[in-house]
Amino acid sequence: MDSVMVKKEVLENPDHDLKRKLEENKEEENSLSTTSKSKRQVIVPVCMPKIHYSPLKTGLCYDVRMRYHAKIFTSYFEYIDPHPEDPRRIYRIYKILAENGLINDPTLSGVDDLGDLMLKIPVRAATSEEILEVHTKEHLEFIESTEKMSREELLKETEKGDSVYFNNDSYASARLPCGGAIEACKAVVEGRVKNSLAVVRPPGHHAEPQAAGGFCLFSNVAVAAKNILKNYPESVRRIMILDWDIHHGNGTQKSFYQDDQVLYVSLHRFEMGKYYPGTIQGQYDQTGEGKGEGFNCNITWPVGGVGDAEYMWAFEQVVMPMGREFKPDLVIISSGFDAADGDTIGQCHVTPSCYGHMTHMLKSLARGNLCVVLEGGYNLDAIARSALSVAKVLIGEPPDELPDPLSDPKPEVIEMIDKVIRLQSKYWNCFRRRHANSGCNFNEPINDSIISKNFPLQKAIRQQQQHYLSDEFNFVTLPLVSMDLPDNTVLCTPNISESNTIIIVVHDTSDIWAKRNVISGTIDLSSSVIIDNSLDFIKWGLDRKYGIIDVNIPLTLFEPDNYSGMITSQEVLIYLWDNYIKYFPSVAKIAFIGIGDSYSGIVHLLGHRDTRAVTKTVINFLGDKQLKPLVPLVDETLSEWYFKNSLIFSNNSHQCWKENESRKPRKKFGRVLRCDTDGLNNIIEERFEEATDFILDSFEEWSDEE
Amino acid sequence: MDSVMVKKEVLENPDHDLKRKLEENKEEENSLSTTSKSKRQVIVPVCMPKIHYSPLKTGLCYDVRMRYHAKIFTSYFEYIDPHPEDPRRIYRIYKILAENGLINDPTLSGVDDLGDLMLKIPVRAATSEEILEVHTKEHLEFIESTEKMSREELLKETEKGDSVYFNNDSYASARLPCGGAIEACKAVVEGRVKNSLAVVRPPGHHAEPQAAGGFCLFSNVAVAAKNILKNYPESVRRIMILDWDIHHGNGTQKSFYQDDQVLYVSLHRFEMGKYYPGTIQGQYDQTGEGKGEGFNCNITWPVGGVGDAEYMWAFEQVVMPMGREFKPDLVIISSGFDAADGDTIGQCHVTPSCYGHMTHMLKSLARGNLCVVLEGGYNLDAIARSALSVAKVLIGEPPDELPDPLSDPKPEVIEMIDKVIRLQSKYWNCFRRRHANSGCNFNEPINDSIISKNFPLQKAIRQQQQHYLSDEFNFVTLPLVSMDLPDNTVLCTPNISESNTIIIVVHDTSDIWAKRNVISGTIDLSSSVIIDNSLDFIKWGLDRKYGIIDVNIPLTLFEPDNYSGMITSQEVLIYLWDNYIKYFPSVAKIAFIGIGDSYSGIVHLLGHRDTRAVTKTVINFLGDKQLKPLVPLVDETLSEWYFKNSLIFSNNSHQCWKENESRKPRKKFGRVLRCDTDGLNNIIEERFEEATDFILDSFEEWSDEE
Repeated sequence: MDSVMVKKEVLENPDHDLKRKLEENKEEENSLSTTSKSKRQVIVPVCMPKIHYSPLKTGLCYDVRMRYHAKIFTSYFEYIDPHPEDPRRIYRIYKILAENGLINDPTLSGVDDLGDLMLKIPVRAATSEEILEVHTKEHLEFIESTEKMSREELLKETEKGDSVYFNNDSYASARLPCGGAIEACKAVVEGRVKNSLAVVRPPGHHAEPQAAGGFCLFSNVAVAAKNILKNYPESVRRIMILDWDIHHGNGTQKSFYQDDQVLYVSLHRFEMGKYYPGTIQGQYDQTGEGKGEGFNCNITWPVGGVGDAEYMWAFEQVVMPMGREFKPDLVIISSGFDAADGDTIGQCHVTPSCYGHMTHMLKSLARGNLCVVLEGGYNLDAIARSALSVAKVLIGEPPDELPDPLSDPKPEVIEMIDKVIRLQSKYWNCFRRRHANSGCNFNEPINDSIISKNFPLQKAIRQQQQHYLSDEFNFVTLPLVSMDLPDNTVLCTPNISESNTIIIVVHDTSDIWAKRNVISGTIDLSSSVIIDNSLDFIKWGLDRKYGIIDVNIPLTLFEPDNYSGMITSQEVLIYLWDNYIKYFPSVAKIAFIGIGDSYSGIVHLLGHRDTRAVTKTVINFLGDKQLKPLVPLVDETLSEWYFKNSLIFSNNSHQCWKENESRKPRKKFGRVLRCDTDGLNNIIEERFEEATDFILDSFEEWSDEE
Repeated sequence: MDSVMVKKEVLENPDHDLKRKLEENKEEENSLSTTSKSKRQVIVPVCMPKIHYSPLKTGLCYDVRMRYHAKIFTSYFEYIDPHPEDPRRIYRIYKILAENGLINDPTLSGVDDLGDLMLKIPVRAATSEEILEVHTKEHLEFIESTEKMSREELLKETEKGDSVYFNNDSYASARLPCGGAIEACKAVVEGRVKNSLAVVRPPGHHAEPQAAGGFCLFSNVAVAAKNILKNYPESVRRIMILDWDIHHGNGTQKSFYQDDQVLYVSLHRFEMGKYYPGTIQGQYDQTGEGKGEGFNCNITWPVGGVGDAEYMWAFEQVVMPMGREFKPDLVIISSGFDAADGDTIGQCHVTPSCYGHMTHMLKSLARGNLCVVLEGGYNLDAIARSALSVAKVLIGEPPDELPDPLSDPKPEVIEMIDKVIRLQSKYWNCFRRRHANSGCNFNEPINDSIISKNFPLQKAIRQQQQHYLSDEFNFVTLPLVSMDLPDNTVLCTPNISESNTIIIVVHDTSDIWAKRNVISGTIDLSSSVIIDNSLDFIKWGLDRKYGIIDVNIPLTLFEPDNYSGMITSQEVLIYLWDNYIKYFPSVAKIAFIGIGDSYSGIVHLLGHRDTRAVTKTVINFLGDKQLKPLVPLVDETLSEWYFKNSLIFSNNSHQCWKENESRKPRKKFGRVLRCDTDGLNNIIEERFEEATDFILDSFEEWSDEE
């Protein structure tokens, strides 16, 4: 079967016979035409055409017989609302190809001559031998046994299985997509078509070697890849399988998990394993085993609702660099269209144009050897439009423009892709620099031993604040007896217990602005600074001779694992109230200022203790942190009081404004205001005056002052 | 001229007439085949072919008349070694297309029927009216005047010009590439070809509206773009010009600098303006003016020798996202091939395959409307091979695989691309997130006012060290009277003057390992640490009851501008010697340990003072910093002494090992050793024992101890 290779080798070295001719032309090359305008005719022998790819057609695999596997109706309801893996799926794709002139089949019956653009690749049943390259004998025999089962047995097996159904045609039907995928790949590898599209069902990528699952009976793409590698050992040494079905292709992954000849790359919803198939095998850190280590790449969507921006990002940042470095001889797309806009199972928003762009990109690998095999996708319109877009690119059309505006990839996705790149940089050279870009000084990722051996940056930051406040303003520490927190957690002005008016600033550890070297990922210390957001409020309070309590809550600590900054903040504030403030003899007015996540301690205190006698106002700079409701344990009127006496400044882009454009957050969250900008630093700068004016008003000092 | 638009609109909405038919088929769609196996034949009317692009040929512009513009020979030498912008350039490209079967012209004479793959686009002279869309009347008239000049006048003008030459055919020849470029674009825009290749000369992109330059007489691509925008106002609203010639296309940029209809993107060598044309206009920060602001993008190579890795990086990170967002109706490649491997003017290493890949990527823009126009490129073999690769992709062949291994982009290039992205993120949504990725907490870049208002991180780091060393080991400060440096620059063990043995550690401010949030660019403080490289040496010395002097040299300060960490290190070390150490009564043995750039202070001291009576050894951890030679001002034998008594540990990838693989660095640099790893932290870990053993040896304490 490997005569193909010889042909290819000749084609790839088109200059074999040209040496002599080049010699002949040398003279002509040296004669500059400016002097001799005579047109010397040089004869180039008419040679074998060197262009072999583009004149070929695109192969198409389609056969009405694959429509016979279907769910047995058990109720009228199933007739009205059929199972999503519906026989019409392949028909609708075939039909749209005809309607758009890619194939010429006015009868839509599956004719042999499809016209100028596509070449029919006849579908045949995969042989048992072929299927056994991937699947166990037991599995094959079980699927075969469904042929003879009674209706009751079939329904029982359907019930038992993991999202699969069977009828008496299932075995025969399921061998067809398997054989179709093999033939579609073979036609490409043998150079009979430039690329191919296998419009087949039932799908395959969930079928594990020993079990059916997720609408899949045999692992079509895996069976095809195994048999191609077996039968074309010289011309096909490496296959890349790109699985853009919205579900993880657990079956395909398993088939090649220890194989370095097949690079399996899957983009799928994962969501901490909550999305089907929901096994740990779909996690991004599953990179292969044994000699297959580094040849498995799961790009997991941590959230649903992804679309073009995320897929294009993943392709440009991960899939294409990896594919170019792998140098496959054949690329197979496990092409589910359930990430398509409109698919209610996938709930994502990939447009047909984006499928076109991804196909176009993949065409640049493996010298164009590309085979697209249908997997899932359940909105009949969406899969038809998506498949049309893919098919057009296969035959040589340019992809359509991506819709406008191309939104930013979701932050969670950028973060995940970054993790994937870091992890895969262990195996792929192309990611080394990108890895450095993600900000690490070390060859290896930072680990617990590095953390424990070295000094935590956040402690140095608080130490600096303590230094500054004690040197400049004689601040002292307020001890938190029996709480396992640093000594300098609470700092305050001297003689705080004698103050009449107190500003209590509760903040997370100060941010640093760090300039990072893009190459080494190291921090450029010479132009990095600590951004102390509370300092302006402290200085403002000191100017007015107020007492100041400054509370620093580390957001997280290195140990223990179950530490929570928010809970610590709550405990510290309750402690402060119960052990100090409520005993302060002179205190008459308190204003709380919360910055960042630790503001939750203030809200907690106000709900759990009645501080209204002294608390005049609460200002919280929320940024992008989550809103905390006041839980009025003291009495019901607290919520109203909180709403009246608080200002909660949120980022302009805070989630609470998106969910309900028309409605404001409820009163229990306080008076939430939307700033013009984003970022704690920016909103504090924007609202400093408003916040301090509000405090002065509440202290009834406004008229005295202004 | 705009009837084209109507045609296109119909073609882009292929479903116009299908609605009725879809209705007819509804019944069929709802019948599930599992129950009725009868093949109902549904008639789809044979409709107009919907596939209009891929069946078209690729246009080719070529005309032997463009070979007549040539440099007048003034010596035999010029005949042997002709001017690089050589008439054979276009012939060699035409010839390689024929040899590879892209065109069918055995005579290489420029036949009309080029065969199945390419369509001849006849070249015509651009009209004066067309040229005046870009150029001034004076310029046009000057070029016209060369037609009638005497040989002497021509030679004089050639002498005067900026790298241009003239003969009597220049005017006629130069109007041809201009007209050719227009016709090549027109054929694409009108849908007569799917894309086109204009093999034309003389090139155009250096010709400014008012002047010839850099082998260019008229700005071919600019003239074409202006005339297309003028004549197809409805169907072509935006043109992207991608200029991959190794030189900046100053002429093209100037023509559209205030124009928002043309996005000009150029990739070129710049090297601080030292590379031709060497004007500030080629700098990366030139982004357009007026309504053209944001529509000019210079991607500048800070160094020569770039290749596939850098071009692919630039395309994926900048060119393609920007192009997709711009949504051009036509893409023109200003296709110089002087970045090609083998071009002695460009001295870069872009392979033919990489040109193919870039062309393939650009084909995904503008619905495939792509016109490639030749600019520079002077190695006849290289330009022929490169052009062939581009032409193959134009007709629909897949690009060849990129050579193995695809090296990392050069660090300088990654850094530059990062700058370009940051700058352009002001104008292009697609870069917003990538911008955040480069590590900034603020909406705006950090400025002096932010720096001056906030606390420098490096001071907090030194403060923490001081805290630790004084709390744990009773370190005290050693004052540097009248030096404008922080008090805690030099710390030492108590009673240092009475020590017999002293370890002097001189280090840059400690690195921090900072985990960065990939979305916001903020530093995740909970898992960031200060990496105190000197601490292990200090503890080791303390264990042995040595005296310790710890010197912290800030690499840079915020002010003054002319501060240099290295010079400070030199001043501090001289000061320490002159004011303290040489007066220490008990000191007998000193070991210096230098870490990072500030080690230069040690080398400086050793050359400027004779410390050999007490200095037993010098250990320097160099990392990737530059080697400093010892300047033996005291006497000539110092260099030999330094070599014998020092160990200089360098990164594995340090420059000094690359320049001269066979030779070791000279003795004046000390005994330089190459570590197995890179990075200060890693090499200290690797060589800690070797370093301390070497010190013990020099102290002659080894035998006592072990």
